[in-house]
Amino acid sequence: MKVIGHFINGAERQDNTRTQDVFNPATGEASARVALAAKSTVEEAVAAAQQAFPAWRATPPMKRARIMFRFKELLEQNSDAVCRAIGSEHGKILHDAAGELQRGIENVEYACGAPELLKGEYSKDVGPGIDSWSEFQPLGVVAGITPFNFPAMVPLWMFPMALVCGNTFVLKPSERDPSASMLMAALLKEAGLPDGVFNVVNGDKEAVDTLLTDPRVMAVSFVGSTPIAEYIYSTASAHGKRCQALGGAKNHAIVMPDADMDNVVNSLLGAAFGSCGERCMALSVAVTVGDEVADRLVEKLQAAMADLKVGAYEEQSNDFGPTITREHQARVIGHIDSAEDQGARIVVDGRHLTVPGYEQGFFVGATLIDGVTAEMDSYKAEIFGPVLQVVRARSMEEAMTLINDHEYGNGTCIYTRDGEAARYFSDGIQVGMVGINIPLPVPVAYHSFGGWKRSLFGDLHAYGPDGVRFYTKRKTVTQRWPSSAVRENAEFSMPTMK
Amino acid sequence: MKVIGHFINGAERQDNTRTQDVFNPATGEASARVALAAKSTVEEAVAAAQQAFPAWRATPPMKRARIMFRFKELLEQNSDAVCRAIGSEHGKILHDAAGELQRGIENVEYACGAPELLKGEYSKDVGPGIDSWSEFQPLGVVAGITPFNFPAMVPLWMFPMALVCGNTFVLKPSERDPSASMLMAALLKEAGLPDGVFNVVNGDKEAVDTLLTDPRVMAVSFVGSTPIAEYIYSTASAHGKRCQALGGAKNHAIVMPDADMDNVVNSLLGAAFGSCGERCMALSVAVTVGDEVADRLVEKLQAAMADLKVGAYEEQSNDFGPTITREHQARVIGHIDSAEDQGARIVVDGRHLTVPGYEQGFFVGATLIDGVTAEMDSYKAEIFGPVLQVVRARSMEEAMTLINDHEYGNGTCIYTRDGEAARYFSDGIQVGMVGINIPLPVPVAYHSFGGWKRSLFGDLHAYGPDGVRFYTKRKTVTQRWPSSAVRENAEFSMPTMK
Amino acid sequence: MKVIGHFINGAERQDNTRTQDVFNPATGEASARVALAAKSTVEEAVAAAQQAFPAWRATPPMKRARIMFRFKELLEQNSDAVCRAIGSEHGKILHDAAGELQRGIENVEYACGAPELLKGEYSKDVGPGIDSWSEFQPLGVVAGITPFNFPAMVPLWMFPMALVCGNTFVLKPSERDPSASMLMAALLKEAGLPDGVFNVVNGDKEAVDTLLTDPRVMAVSFVGSTPIAEYIYSTASAHGKRCQALGGAKNHAIVMPDADMDNVVNSLLGAAFGSCGERCMALSVAVTVGDEVADRLVEKLQAAMADLKVGAYEEQSNDFGPTITREHQARVIGHIDSAEDQGARIVVDGRHLTVPGYEQGFFVGATLIDGVTAEMDSYKAEIFGPVLQVVRARSMEEAMTLINDHEYGNGTCIYTRDGEAARYFSDGIQVGMVGINIPLPVPVAYHSFGGWKRSLFGDLHAYGPDGVRFYTKRKTVTQRWPSSAVRENAEFSMPTMK
Amino acid sequence: MKVIGHFINGAERQDNTRTQDVFNPATGEASARVALAAKSTVEEAVAAAQQAFPAWRATPPMKRARIMFRFKELLEQNSDAVCRAIGSEHGKILHDAAGELQRGIENVEYACGAPELLKGEYSKDVGPGIDSWSEFQPLGVVAGITPFNFPAMVPLWMFPMALVCGNTFVLKPSERDPSASMLMAALLKEAGLPDGVFNVVNGDKEAVDTLLTDPRVMAVSFVGSTPIAEYIYSTASAHGKRCQALGGAKNHAIVMPDADMDNVVNSLLGAAFGSCGERCMALSVAVTVGDEVADRLVEKLQAAMADLKVGAYEEQSNDFGPTITREHQARVIGHIDSAEDQGARIVVDGRHLTVPGYEQGFFVGATLIDGVTAEMDSYKAEIFGPVLQVVRARSMEEAMTLINDHEYGNGTCIYTRDGEAARYFSDGIQVGMVGINIPLPVPVAYHSFGGWKRSLFGDLHAYGPDGVRFYTKRKTVTQRWPSSAVRENAEFSMPTMK
Repeated sequence: MKVIGHFINGAERQDNTRTQDVFNPATGEASARVALAAKSTVEEAVAAAQQAFPAWRATPPMKRARIMFRFKELLEQNSDAVCRAIGSEHGKILHDAAGELQRGIENVEYACGAPELLKGEYSKDVGPGIDSWSEFQPLGVVAGITPFNFPAMVPLWMFPMALVCGNTFVLKPSERDPSASMLMAALLKEAGLPDGVFNVVNGDKEAVDTLLTDPRVMAVSFVGSTPIAEYIYSTASAHGKRCQALGGAKNHAIVMPDADMDNVVNSLLGAAFGSCGERCMALSVAVTVGDEVADRLVEKLQAAMADLKVGAYEEQSNDFGPTITREHQARVIGHIDSAEDQGARIVVDGRHLTVPGYEQGFFVGATLIDGVTAEMDSYKAEIFGPVLQVVRARSMEEAMTLINDHEYGNGTCIYTRDGEAARYFSDGIQVGMVGINIPLPVPVAYHSFGGWKRSLFGDLHAYGPDGVRFYTKRKTVTQRWPSSAVRENAEFSMPTMK
Repeated sequence: MKVIGHFINGAERQDNTRTQDVFNPATGEASARVALAAKSTVEEAVAAAQQAFPAWRATPPMKRARIMFRFKELLEQNSDAVCRAIGSEHGKILHDAAGELQRGIENVEYACGAPELLKGEYSKDVGPGIDSWSEFQPLGVVAGITPFNFPAMVPLWMFPMALVCGNTFVLKPSERDPSASMLMAALLKEAGLPDGVFNVVNGDKEAVDTLLTDPRVMAVSFVGSTPIAEYIYSTASAHGKRCQALGGAKNHAIVMPDADMDNVVNSLLGAAFGSCGERCMALSVAVTVGDEVADRLVEKLQAAMADLKVGAYEEQSNDFGPTITREHQARVIGHIDSAEDQGARIVVDGRHLTVPGYEQGFFVGATLIDGVTAEMDSYKAEIFGPVLQVVRARSMEEAMTLINDHEYGNGTCIYTRDGEAARYFSDGIQVGMVGINIPLPVPVAYHSFGGWKRSLFGDLHAYGPDGVRFYTKRKTVTQRWPSSAVRENAEFSMPTMK
Repeated sequence: MKVIGHFINGAERQDNTRTQDVFNPATGEASARVALAAKSTVEEAVAAAQQAFPAWRATPPMKRARIMFRFKELLEQNSDAVCRAIGSEHGKILHDAAGELQRGIENVEYACGAPELLKGEYSKDVGPGIDSWSEFQPLGVVAGITPFNFPAMVPLWMFPMALVCGNTFVLKPSERDPSASMLMAALLKEAGLPDGVFNVVNGDKEAVDTLLTDPRVMAVSFVGSTPIAEYIYSTASAHGKRCQALGGAKNHAIVMPDADMDNVVNSLLGAAFGSCGERCMALSVAVTVGDEVADRLVEKLQAAMADLKVGAYEEQSNDFGPTITREHQARVIGHIDSAEDQGARIVVDGRHLTVPGYEQGFFVGATLIDGVTAEMDSYKAEIFGPVLQVVRARSMEEAMTLINDHEYGNGTCIYTRDGEAARYFSDGIQVGMVGINIPLPVPVAYHSFGGWKRSLFGDLHAYGPDGVRFYTKRKTVTQRWPSSAVRENAEFSMPTMK
Repeated sequence: MKVIGHFINGAERQDNTRTQDVFNPATGEASARVALAAKSTVEEAVAAAQQAFPAWRATPPMKRARIMFRFKELLEQNSDAVCRAIGSEHGKILHDAAGELQRGIENVEYACGAPELLKGEYSKDVGPGIDSWSEFQPLGVVAGITPFNFPAMVPLWMFPMALVCGNTFVLKPSERDPSASMLMAALLKEAGLPDGVFNVVNGDKEAVDTLLTDPRVMAVSFVGSTPIAEYIYSTASAHGKRCQALGGAKNHAIVMPDADMDNVVNSLLGAAFGSCGERCMALSVAVTVGDEVADRLVEKLQAAMADLKVGAYEEQSNDFGPTITREHQARVIGHIDSAEDQGARIVVDGRHLTVPGYEQGFFVGATLIDGVTAEMDSYKAEIFGPVLQVVRARSMEEAMTLINDHEYGNGTCIYTRDGEAARYFSDGIQVGMVGINIPLPVPVAYHSFGGWKRSLFGDLHAYGPDGVRFYTKRKTVTQRWPSSAVRENAEFSMPTMK
């Protein structure tokens, strides 16, 4: 079976240590093995990145950006290969993988603007004859540790911007679906990126801990679950690194009585069940204001969910695919069981889904649960599966309080036609990304992505303007020239003239 | 003989009116004829642009930018064809045409950042519950009128930014070398630009005046000589249009006693004679501070100029090519004659150059004139030929006064190693683009291009951040929602709870 | 009778030429005479400003800003005197004058941020070892020509920003109400502004034309009527000056069926009749969507207007005061007559108002006219009086078309609760300043003020960010240091070490 | 003896716990006692701040800024009292205290620009009919923990910006010199700040630890020594707080052979000995390039240091005052002893200074040490006293390597006239704040202050633009309105027309 190795200093390579199966979640069968880097392998990648840093840092931003222009072209030309790698290892349907890749490419496009984004501020005459300006210099070697659920997009949130800012990079992708990262490494090289500027190490906790503690690594970007994010943030911080660690979520949509209900139902289907609910921005709780709204919503959702198609990634007519592992499948089903046990009503039950021809796949069907309350365990947890819960509130205030009291503050949405309700909601809700009639309010690449509360550890959000600030350090120069020696001495009197 | 027509609404077309010869300046022979658009043809182009405007304006900026990403790829793939079109009609050597095209492509790259560049400013709570923000909306149909000396680059200063801002465009290129514009129109279409969004009309004063007076044209960008720029600006302004009109130049370099003289000589050669001196940023006057500097400079320049090679565009070993027309050749020679008549010393004389095999070409050889003074006619005029004049000043103050007193204020440069001298110069010189040891301080695409004094009419410079502002109009929205009707009414009391 | 002179080079002074009466519009009596500057007096002011320029330009922005901090304090301490000067010469009630002054002070507050606002953009490594940055340098002597209707606020839109940018200033206020400007000149001096940096010349066309043609004046800001604005713009432009000229307006509010009608009526009263309608942002046309809305609106307005109180500026319970002159009073009444003649219905008639004790005052009462159509002369004109016209439309599209077809595009408003309607309106309306449920959407001082179409001539709006750009010119510096002479020579080998 | 208490919820108060002496370092005598807050007192302050937050957050930024305008006036009016409080508790001379206060006031001035600084980014049409924008919302209750050496300036780096961003504040100043903070609290109240928005708790580790662990505190800003900074950063981070912790420094100046030596000596005197060297930006190491430079520098410094006057704060002719405590005095002397023991040459020896009339004061005289090397303990440590060390390097590269190898990276400077050397230095030096011929390159208030390496823990620098980002959290809103219900329904056909 093929062993997926590492990409270090411009070449794919193996180290002779541990490996682990990579599964096709639709079939439940291993399709390859992935190397789990030893500490020494990670250190080798860091060393390659460190060695490549001085020349890359000295390359003008415009030239660095041009490699991203070329990388964008190559990603588009090779999108099919990248999407198939995503689909076969993660399980998401090809159209969903294409959407993921497209969002990732948008970050490449943003990084193409590096010369504009790296401008400092210039102040003439901060004092008499004194000027001062800021420069945003690269940090050095930076690392990214990324989750299984967006094997292309989340790395693309990180490295294009890190690279155009002049840093060199070590990526540790999820060991569940490492192939997209390896493909992108090869495309970067083809785009003209010098060897060592971008490296991929596959691995597990050993690799992660090496990156978190190696003094040559200046910054760490992470996306994953909240407990791990907290560990990453505190460990990296304690080792003097800059860190941003994005964690879990529980994203609520408030459905107001004046909402356009057909729009609500249509957009909720994709937001709740797309990518099998394995998105940190998945809309997993609908909070209805008033029972009348709740009843209408549940009825329409139940009807619409009957048409959802679940299956393997190759079939474009499928709506979503399997969960990532057998263990995760069991965990999702456990959350549904728990909700039922604690008194909620399972309106549509996805626990017993079998997909013909894929009987060993890690599937869970779309599930709708009504009558959920804030006390239930399944409400408190991030289920990360195709499960939409309905909580019934009596007023908008109650709905907002529910959201503001939750541990997480990643994304949220309100469905209404009313300008005042939308403004009141977006102002007061303690959530970092807010949608007005948009259930997945993922910021576009030229804004920044980040939750509040325990959904993000760090000051700066991911990608966009905050990404630029994260991947650079500010230097402020203040300058005065002491005297006019050259200027004044350069007078050459000619007695007969002037 | 081939007749070069117009590009209107997505297709090349002729109108059955007047035509004019297009020459190969190296051979002195006509290679094609170019159509001179009738008023009605120009109006047709404007109508096409106007019709295309609503849909183009409504296209999200990111989608408009993506066409520029594709256009950049196509320009790179077709650079050879574009450069040959430039060389054969303008006469510049292929390596110089490639440099021109590259600078133009950089403006396309900048335009790819449209989503970032078009961001407005959002202010929460300008009053209690009141928000306000700015939007930068496109103007509508805008026109560009461009000169012969950069048949690809100057149009590329204009239309990529105008287009990504949501405008539609009518380009009137120079009738001396129209083919580059026609090629770019075809490439834009291939890149996916909808028909009518970009149009080219070839022509003369009739076409120009139609664009300046048609009420559907909202803005005019112009690059050319100062008298025409002034006419364009006053006419367009009087017809209610936004206008920026870039005119002539006389760019001086001050050579300080501490300058690195080898660097001065090397860089002056290219800056003075490159593209046959037909650049609005050509360095045409060296102002020496002290006779010792002057003597050294003249001696070294004279020696270095002996190696310059002049000839036809196809031969990459040539340094520069012919002037644009027989008339212009005579005008340049007349300026040299005039300098000689008024007492300057012709150190290197390019008036009698003959290029074997190109005896009918419009060539002038590189010319160095010493002892020029501010009173001479050839000093006051923009020669626009391969002529470098040396003015001898006794002090830096005298040198700066000379520059500040000139009618033009496009570009300038100081050669020095001294921080104080450089700062004093760049602060006090009345010129829009300043080089420190850089003789052609053309701003990069993410800054803006523009001279002061009579070198530019209008508030805003060309391309870069000012280009964005020029091609958009500011709209400020202030918003308050009147009451909480939906929110408050949406309370559904259930007596037993809460 | 007191003669109000000029403020030149730090002192008030007279010139022995022409004078003109200044009236108290509430009594109809002259209270002073104002000098009308001769050409030579204006030239003297320009000369003073020019002489003060070099030292002021060299003063660090932070120090220039500190004078504005102090000026703000002084304006607040002297607000009573300024408001009385406004009230007695313009006629507006003291509370309205205080509002005007407050909006003006906000521009002073914004100007206090000059060090932030004047930052240029700094780009490291635009090429190998090459840096480039932009500086925003002052223009030199700039002029402001301001209207009678905001004798304090409109000058404050201009000179605080012009001054902190490093320019020196000549203000030509309205000869109807010159005292506020003279008071501010004295306060600026008290705040520490060096003599000559700010000057006031009172006068008429002779003064204006001198400012428009004097080659030492680099820029002109104007606010007034459209015909004069057009004259100012074309004349100043033809004389090589930067110019922004703000003209007339006809501001419409669309009243949608879902609007909060009490809010509409309350806010329309102030927007239509405040300051006697003599505001370029006065809301003078209500466009109702559907007859039902129109009937309700007219009925409620008619009732509410019965409570409006008209009188002299000293009485704070008055809602508004007289028009500015007897001629203007007649002109406003003429517009009402014309509307009646052309078939509109005068619902509330202010033509015959007499204010006891002020029988000679230039009063017109609040007037409501229903059934106005786009063809009527009174609809086409800017009435600039306390007259609100109602146009009945059948749909939102019809209402928007009406607005978009009008010559002017200054301000507009929509009354609705609906998010979609507000967004559709603000996107598509061809007006520069848009209110959502805000009838006077004057941008706050940190945004910019400007209309579209024939309401503004020039590229840049007034005050705010555009004000900074208007009062500065861009200089782009590109810098490379030629060799490492000092650095490399500074090696002092000591044979025994290293 | 007076007991300095706390300022909580708008009033000064005591808690009945522990107190500690506050000394006049010039006399060595206690002048007051300061309360050391119990945990419960700190929690009370936090509670007051939390209670004040909702109303303060809802106050428009312009209104918050206006309190800072007023606060600036009051600081200026009360500068004498503030400076005396600083001088008597810290020991710095009044002119130095005035300089400190002025730098602090500049941060208040910057905070006055809050409406400009808080602008978010607005993107129209991120998709069809979809808009997105960013808002920068306040964090809630934030804390500042500040050092003894700038009892007014460092708090002013923090709270003015924190407050105008909408946060409420708890300040824990140094227990050595708490009075300046108490005075500023009173002035803020006088300026109109609502009670509870700004609070001061005096105290020691108990107070600090309470602030670091209380879940209601959202962010901590700290300035102090590196070991404490590291503790603060890791503790606050582990408790989920945003943190920036500024630590120690060792600031080097490179003196190049072409430097203007008189300028070097003059400016080094102030930079090394001003405020008794107790500044994190004190210039404590001069690195000479070549022995010739070293010899000249040491000779001139020795001569100039003879004129330095040391004494008590009230006497304006003094150059600097005592160290902060008897313990610190001993520590500084110990560093000089250590340098001598390890082979350096004490050129000017300040160890045995006695100031007549102040024999018990904590004085150390200005000390110059030549022949220092990187291995010496006194070189590695931050001495924080009036001690200037000279390290002799043979080349600029060696000098830069020395600096880059040091643990700290706060400030640095190069003395040269050469543009290339300055650019090479500022580009490559691993230090956050760089001076060209400026020995104390403290960024002005509209740039940001921060070191690199172990001089700062956190991503964002203090005050200026980074301060705004630190004291706000980003919220991104994405908005689409679902349908045109109101707009389309609002059509009222009238059959006879249109």
